[in-house]
Amino acid sequence: MASPTFTENKFWLNNKETDFNNERLSNCLAEVTKRADPKCGDLLKWKLHICSENNFPTAAGLASSAAGYACLVSTLAALYQVEGDISAIARRGSGSACRSIYGGFVRWHKGEESGGGDSIATQIVPATHWPQMRVVVLVVNDEQKKYSSTSGMKRSVETSQFLELRAAKVVPKRVEEMVGAIERRDFEAFARVTMQDSNQFHSVCLDTYPPCFYMNDVSRAVVELVHLYNEYRGATKVAYTFDAGPNACLYLLEDDVDEVVTLVNDIFPSVSDPREYFRGLPLNLKNSGNLQEALKLKPNSPGLLKYIIHTKIGDGPKILTTPSEHLLTENGLPKNL
Amino acid sequence: MASPTFTENKFWLNNKETDFNNERLSNCLAEVTKRADPKCGDLLKWKLHICSENNFPTAAGLASSAAGYACLVSTLAALYQVEGDISAIARRGSGSACRSIYGGFVRWHKGEESGGGDSIATQIVPATHWPQMRVVVLVVNDEQKKYSSTSGMKRSVETSQFLELRAAKVVPKRVEEMVGAIERRDFEAFARVTMQDSNQFHSVCLDTYPPCFYMNDVSRAVVELVHLYNEYRGATKVAYTFDAGPNACLYLLEDDVDEVVTLVNDIFPSVSDPREYFRGLPLNLKNSGNLQEALKLKPNSPGLLKYIIHTKIGDGPKILTTPSEHLLTENGLPKNL
Repeated sequence: MASPTFTENKFWLNNKETDFNNERLSNCLAEVTKRADPKCGDLLKWKLHICSENNFPTAAGLASSAAGYACLVSTLAALYQVEGDISAIARRGSGSACRSIYGGFVRWHKGEESGGGDSIATQIVPATHWPQMRVVVLVVNDEQKKYSSTSGMKRSVETSQFLELRAAKVVPKRVEEMVGAIERRDFEAFARVTMQDSNQFHSVCLDTYPPCFYMNDVSRAVVELVHLYNEYRGATKVAYTFDAGPNACLYLLEDDVDEVVTLVNDIFPSVSDPREYFRGLPLNLKNSGNLQEALKLKPNSPGLLKYIIHTKIGDGPKILTTPSEHLLTENGLPKNL
Repeated sequence: MASPTFTENKFWLNNKETDFNNERLSNCLAEVTKRADPKCGDLLKWKLHICSENNFPTAAGLASSAAGYACLVSTLAALYQVEGDISAIARRGSGSACRSIYGGFVRWHKGEESGGGDSIATQIVPATHWPQMRVVVLVVNDEQKKYSSTSGMKRSVETSQFLELRAAKVVPKRVEEMVGAIERRDFEAFARVTMQDSNQFHSVCLDTYPPCFYMNDVSRAVVELVHLYNEYRGATKVAYTFDAGPNACLYLLEDDVDEVVTLVNDIFPSVSDPREYFRGLPLNLKNSGNLQEALKLKPNSPGLLKYIIHTKIGDGPKILTTPSEHLLTENGLPKNL
């Protein structure tokens, strides 16, 4: 909300007032106002009240800040009537936020400019292109020390003997393969490239000196479960990918979700209230008894996973038009404070 | 023992009679007899009683079979008076056995011949060249599924995009660096190359599809402990290396052993009888309290390590000359049966 009556900029994140003058937010705001429509006039001088809620787990290596900054930049761009691509602005808040500006399947272009100005995102296809695609996130109960992914990546650039080959040869080819797989709705190719590329990212982390480890024994057990399951099904039905943390993102098609989550739930027994444990889209769990036997798998000790999120490909940021959906009331203060 | 009175070949391993006609043993025997001194005459027709004891943990990914086959081939070569290099013969029993034929610091040459005939080992320097070098093996209590290192390596050759670069560019350079470090007794260089190359081997395993994991969370914690300790000391005092399993081999100099093992023992508390837990050369453990505090480390849950072996660079196989040291009695049966 912008108003001539506001006396200072204010920022609430998940119902807590937070410093407005942080670097990432300031960068985004500066870039958006630079490209504001001149017709905005005095609007550009008005102070802002920003209220943000994020229902995705924060600091779990699940790109919740990407979602947050994509929403922030989309909203500011709508307010100041910015034209053209805004993914490069979102990237100033959080690198991967540029991918979250557009819904559906998105490509983040490396770009050629030294300042990164052309490192933008474009949509490959909208979510409706492949409506069967589902994502199951296994959030791992992790007590290991966290690594900063930014400093880890810097160290990889400096020390890994593999990163150059990966960046120059492997990734460009895989991006094309992936775009083709998405366009053709070829799940097997999509899944194979997803898994190989996740493994290779972590391979580079291990080739870094000193090495960074993001995956742990639970991640490793998920990888083994996925390969065993795919082998049993005689086809690649599930893919895993791990970002800068031990949590697994599983990609799979709608029809396989219940069987896979049932199996995961039996192999990684929960100790939590199911209403807290299973989040997102509904699930219809049964008993994986025969499948477990066929795969020769035994349940792990309970409580290795914190919770499971079942979700699908989203549509990207939306401008809410119903006042009742707004997080700020008419007087500019958060509704849920 | 060979004797005209023996009616059949016999083989005892760790005091259990074992099949003589296994492929690896047969390969070694065939190669040795092929190169036997013609003077041996009838000796070559005599049946053999072979008795072998191995005090190193078997099937722990610690190359115990390399030690066993190196001894076997050395003994057979002495019996049949084989001249010249025998490491290529030992390689027929267990690939890495070729390295164990010679004591001290040894180089395993890749060779150029397609049959691998020139893939032999040579000694770089004897153990006396660097008498301060020590090895501390942390044997991990591991309940994970074991991978066969042979089938894993085959899969790496077929699927890893990194292996070719590693084999063509990285390893040849590192071998030269390592030989130089050993010749100069340059522990820092020795340690860095050891760690980087261990990490890169496991990096290739992870870049394999499906991936192989040999290191686990305990291995990872050891890696972190070593880097923290080296950082604290302001110098590379300890190196880790992991083979096809989670057990850590630490290399360090004599003067640092007590401090490092004390720290390891406090961070990975044991649940075992110390007489069983600490094996090999003597240790003088104290309390790592201040060091632990300086490194901001907390003890892990007890029992993550199975035992700790403290050892040094060996002299390679020796022919025992005292009859009382022999494992077979005069009648050709094991003493300890």
